[in-house]
Amino acid sequence: MIDYKETAHQAKLASFQMANLKEEIRTKALTAIAQALEENKSVIFKENQADLEKAQADQLAQPIINRLKFDQHKLEDIISGIQSLLGLPDPLFQKLLERELDEGLTLVKTTCPIGVIGVIFESRPDALIQISTLCIKSGNCSILKGGSEAARTNRILFEIIQTAGLAAGLPEHFITLVETRAGIDELIKCHESIDLLIPRGSNAFVQHIMANSKIPVMGHADGICHIYVDQEADLEKAVSIIADSKTQYVAACNTLETLLVHQDVAAKLLPALKQALEGLENKKVLIRGDEATQAIISCQAASQEDFQTEYLDYILSIKLVHSLEEAIDHINRYGSHHTDCIVTEDKTAAEQFMNFVDSAGVYQNCSTRFADGFRYGFGAEVGISTGKLHARGPVGLEGLVTYKYRLFGQGHVVSDYAEGKKSFHFKDK
Amino acid sequence: MIDYKETAHQAKLASFQMANLKEEIRTKALTAIAQALEENKSVIFKENQADLEKAQADQLAQPIINRLKFDQHKLEDIISGIQSLLGLPDPLFQKLLERELDEGLTLVKTTCPIGVIGVIFESRPDALIQISTLCIKSGNCSILKGGSEAARTNRILFEIIQTAGLAAGLPEHFITLVETRAGIDELIKCHESIDLLIPRGSNAFVQHIMANSKIPVMGHADGICHIYVDQEADLEKAVSIIADSKTQYVAACNTLETLLVHQDVAAKLLPALKQALEGLENKKVLIRGDEATQAIISCQAASQEDFQTEYLDYILSIKLVHSLEEAIDHINRYGSHHTDCIVTEDKTAAEQFMNFVDSAGVYQNCSTRFADGFRYGFGAEVGISTGKLHARGPVGLEGLVTYKYRLFGQGHVVSDYAEGKKSFHFKDK
Repeated sequence: MIDYKETAHQAKLASFQMANLKEEIRTKALTAIAQALEENKSVIFKENQADLEKAQADQLAQPIINRLKFDQHKLEDIISGIQSLLGLPDPLFQKLLERELDEGLTLVKTTCPIGVIGVIFESRPDALIQISTLCIKSGNCSILKGGSEAARTNRILFEIIQTAGLAAGLPEHFITLVETRAGIDELIKCHESIDLLIPRGSNAFVQHIMANSKIPVMGHADGICHIYVDQEADLEKAVSIIADSKTQYVAACNTLETLLVHQDVAAKLLPALKQALEGLENKKVLIRGDEATQAIISCQAASQEDFQTEYLDYILSIKLVHSLEEAIDHINRYGSHHTDCIVTEDKTAAEQFMNFVDSAGVYQNCSTRFADGFRYGFGAEVGISTGKLHARGPVGLEGLVTYKYRLFGQGHVVSDYAEGKKSFHFKDK
Repeated sequence: MIDYKETAHQAKLASFQMANLKEEIRTKALTAIAQALEENKSVIFKENQADLEKAQADQLAQPIINRLKFDQHKLEDIISGIQSLLGLPDPLFQKLLERELDEGLTLVKTTCPIGVIGVIFESRPDALIQISTLCIKSGNCSILKGGSEAARTNRILFEIIQTAGLAAGLPEHFITLVETRAGIDELIKCHESIDLLIPRGSNAFVQHIMANSKIPVMGHADGICHIYVDQEADLEKAVSIIADSKTQYVAACNTLETLLVHQDVAAKLLPALKQALEGLENKKVLIRGDEATQAIISCQAASQEDFQTEYLDYILSIKLVHSLEEAIDHINRYGSHHTDCIVTEDKTAAEQFMNFVDSAGVYQNCSTRFADGFRYGFGAEVGISTGKLHARGPVGLEGLVTYKYRLFGQGHVVSDYAEGKKSFHFKDK
């Protein structure tokens, strides 16, 4: 039986070494990993083929099988992701503040890694590479638990990354792979060694982790994203943005779930929208509308529950509103603070929407599907946070570092300041 | 009976207004509050006198009575705190990033308030003013629960701040005072409206809040701070820094609890230190040493438990170590990641200590008591975080803001990028 407390403790010890590696070593490791993935691609594809065959034999759902597939195209994507990560500035050892508190007493705030990151991810094996390379660049040790359906692919990817990383000078235990489902329940108890958990999976799963661990969790619960079509909207843009937001990839957290339409443009927008959404090949969208919507187009009736549901499916709920304020109130009440968009040509309306909607992403005239670390230029992401603390929205390198305060004195004591013998002068450098 | 869900919901609604107030209004409010406190000082002192008399009649401990006292001196401190807060730059509407993702598609990351902050604080009524003014400057609404022993002082301070704030244009419900102990258990259930809880109190109390609320909690658990006296230490500095760190204010979280001494300097340091610590008037420190310490000076025996204890009292545990590495290992194992100091004239040793000790504050040659928002030049603090996420160390304005991503498009859809018709160019402005 695996001793997870010990495993996590080994990672914690390695994390102190990892935190102090020069950028040079981390760069060397990332370069070597990209090269090793390319060189070993035939064995990766072979292992992936075995996982795919097992998945088919086990009759797993097609979307899972799609996500599981690791082919030449995915490999190219992943290697170009590592290249772009290499091009980003070092997130470590950055001076965030240098302040002379008093003569000879200097405070320096510098970035440093968080330490040990535990990541539990779904079937996509490319996530293993994305997350572990983000952790290397940011000086963190990672403990990874992937989906069991990708077991063989994950194992070979892990071995390639581990071997290349160690050869480049990363400390032993910089990466750990957990291969049993029971491992999850053990890992989330290791609050003495693991600094942050990033669960990627269903809402229920993330909530389960949050409720059962003392370790801080970075993970979103729901993604109930909205688009509001304002009275000053360009309706042609609106239809195309709605179609993309709903159907470009229906199972993502940044997919549109509820459409709000200003009543003054509904009669013009809705028939065109219905036609567009129902005309999509293989992606026909079912519309559920409130009464006012049903008065304009024929569709199913939307219940209160629809507006609180993350469908992750080809279903869209629609509600007509009387004003921008009503749209904002609806979003703040029913939304999940993920990503919400206004379609309008009116700058003032857009500004008001963006100021008052309490979400990580507030958009004007573009698809909610842009909410993604790669599309924001972060290289990759470890997840999207709907919490407001630490990291919000797509989380890249920045969300994987913290900071420490270094204070350099020359025998300074507080009693001198408390008794008024000395005073602070606070000079920023 | 008070409906706390409704109270918290009112604060949430106010928070959207609060988040969008111009700096001008927030400045006007803070100025008015400072003035109103000065103008109403006689009634504040009178109410405080009533609390003090009740505390004495109830035979509360002297330290509590000391913290409860709100006199001319405290008032001057608090008003000068508000003045320094007024002098700090606006933490809101700061552009953290502006990036053109592609032609006509621009991402802007700007700071914004967290929303509604629930603060539960101990007997010091000045904390009410510090926290509420930090919240005003950072555009947050606050819900405050103070110690019952300061009930009358808290009530009058709250009324003065509320009246002055509303007159200056802050939204109704920008501040809420909770006056019953039962209120705490109700408040921590309001995860739909409260964005962040800051409990200030005993370790057990903070743990209780963390275990019983879905709201993110910013609070430290323990403060087990260390000083390590290196073989290259200036021993005179060491004695004075240790005495200040241990005794300048014994009940604070940044107070020294464990001293580590390199064995090569112990014979010289310990007798001088014992003399200094035992010679302090009213502040005589009891020493508990490991066996090696006991071989040099007469003292109580330190058990394993001593090294895991936050005394908050005139007791110091001492352990001799063979090397800098042993000191670092001890601190990372037994410490609370709060503030730890090395006394040394050796720059390389200091650097290694600061790099490898996993704490919010890593100091060279100065008292651990400097770990404080005011002394760092943050104006004031809402608390000191030993967590690594979001905010670490003393938490001032910066810890009270988050950010949102605004994305401005012109009809941009993701399918164009997925299908290779368009590509991102990521140009930072």
